[in-house]
Amino acid sequence: MTTKIALLGFGTVGKGTYRALTQNAAEIERKTGKRIEVKKILEKNPAVIGSGLAPKELFTQDFDSIVNDPEISIVAEIIGGSEPATTFMLRALRAGKHVVTPNKAVIAANYDMFRQAAAENGVQIRYEASVGGAIPVIETIRKSLVANRITKVQGIVNGTTNYILTKMEEEGMSYGDALKQAQESGFAEQDPTADVEGIDSANKLSILIAECFGVYIKPTELDRTGISKLTRDDLRLATQNGCKLKLIASAERKEDGSIEAFVRPTEVPQDSPLAAVRNEFNGILFSCNMADKIFLSGRGAGMDPTGSAMAADIISLAK
Amino acid sequence: MTTKIALLGFGTVGKGTYRALTQNAAEIERKTGKRIEVKKILEKNPAVIGSGLAPKELFTQDFDSIVNDPEISIVAEIIGGSEPATTFMLRALRAGKHVVTPNKAVIAANYDMFRQAAAENGVQIRYEASVGGAIPVIETIRKSLVANRITKVQGIVNGTTNYILTKMEEEGMSYGDALKQAQESGFAEQDPTADVEGIDSANKLSILIAECFGVYIKPTELDRTGISKLTRDDLRLATQNGCKLKLIASAERKEDGSIEAFVRPTEVPQDSPLAAVRNEFNGILFSCNMADKIFLSGRGAGMDPTGSAMAADIISLAK
Repeated sequence: MTTKIALLGFGTVGKGTYRALTQNAAEIERKTGKRIEVKKILEKNPAVIGSGLAPKELFTQDFDSIVNDPEISIVAEIIGGSEPATTFMLRALRAGKHVVTPNKAVIAANYDMFRQAAAENGVQIRYEASVGGAIPVIETIRKSLVANRITKVQGIVNGTTNYILTKMEEEGMSYGDALKQAQESGFAEQDPTADVEGIDSANKLSILIAECFGVYIKPTELDRTGISKLTRDDLRLATQNGCKLKLIASAERKEDGSIEAFVRPTEVPQDSPLAAVRNEFNGILFSCNMADKIFLSGRGAGMDPTGSAMAADIISLAK
Repeated sequence: MTTKIALLGFGTVGKGTYRALTQNAAEIERKTGKRIEVKKILEKNPAVIGSGLAPKELFTQDFDSIVNDPEISIVAEIIGGSEPATTFMLRALRAGKHVVTPNKAVIAANYDMFRQAAAENGVQIRYEASVGGAIPVIETIRKSLVANRITKVQGIVNGTTNYILTKMEEEGMSYGDALKQAQESGFAEQDPTADVEGIDSANKLSILIAECFGVYIKPTELDRTGISKLTRDDLRLATQNGCKLKLIASAERKEDGSIEAFVRPTEVPQDSPLAAVRNEFNGILFSCNMADKIFLSGRGAGMDPTGSAMAADIISLAK
């Protein structure tokens, strides 16, 4: 049984998703009995279309030909940014197609709207790749911890800032030098604002709060401090205190039901699993009333890790 | 919609499973729309039946009344040991009931038989709780990493031995003293053989190999060395080498398809996430061709953590 899907965009994550589905197709079929066929790819960049990474005849510049194709049951949005990503996702949901996306900014900004649009049209919107990249964060909350009251979630959910802080701590670099190295190594954008000011982490925290506690708080309403004002002395002080300084996204559900949440540089004790998350890796620690502490870590970004999470959602949705 | 289930046994994990399903029932219904009703509990110990932890009228000593009850669609086996657990699970599967179990020894010894019996009867056998307790190990392999070729899995999958090794390393205890403390703290059995000789780890490794690589190797055929001959000097040497000595269950799929597997005390580099797994905690590290490294840790045993994993499987199977 073959499920036909479309990719919107064929940048880094688009290629990773395509690779995960095609390169491991035999493995996927052995494990699940499912076949996934990428029927169309929305992309206008001629260099990308001509790259040879996917057959030329898959590419189209016409979104209508995707949303009106009754054979396509799943649409993977990998354009990034706010528009046209938001409009395309809504149109796909309203056309009765499942949507899969790694777009944390768009999901966090429109969580309720997307969930409602999906429910109204009897389809699902999935975004495992939006928090923690390849790490099974959403799946763990929804499935493995379903019989728990999650009381707290703490995460290192931005690889750029964790890379910078690791370099500052382990190699005594200044913030500026560490940022520069992150940019040269491909772990930071030329404009690093969204990462270093904690905006990306706040988007992910908004999604985590919604998933863990069933309450939607806009990312712009979350208490947020970035790392751009940190100095080597701040890192040294943390070491002296037996801790590591990490950019932590944290949310706790209090006894009275209120939620205390923030993104902030935080001293993490050396014996916390979060202290062992180095460089560009991510880590998430759940506190729960039955499972106690559950910790997950891995790569939070990148072509193949994000493609792995996108593919997992797509395969899970495939009939 | 209510799904009716039966518990076979009401010992530690039986109580944890019952608690997870009843105490968090509102949370479960909010998240999934599902209600789980424990209709019958097979248990003959009068002290347990009279404990007040579950209504007396749920208890029965008659397995036939469970297996012949058409309302019961899921049977949770929590008796432990080989018999009558094996027979009861097979009978439940053949009666068209899903089976959920934490019984690693029985699953590892009869992996193919159980999978076949489930398939023949159009039902499932689930054992998330059998490896890593509350940690979402099986779910991660089957769902989140489905689009990956897993190349290697390494785990600290036995809390007793990890507790002993942590005490030997951090407090300079002898093996004998650390074992005694583990027994006094409830982390080791009076007869610790299955734990300290790596038999329990080998059972879990057999299950991990089957799940990761689709190949069943009997636990008795796995290369296995326990920790009972380790001395403080072995721990000190590991520290001098910048490592921690851990009882590692490891399996690697080579390029030619062959599998190299062992349970053995192994020096783990300090910067491996496995090195940060202390005391009775468990940790599993997957190496994959798309997701790269994925690490999971948490409590590998205990009433509530194991109950959490049992409940997750039960809820997932519920219609």
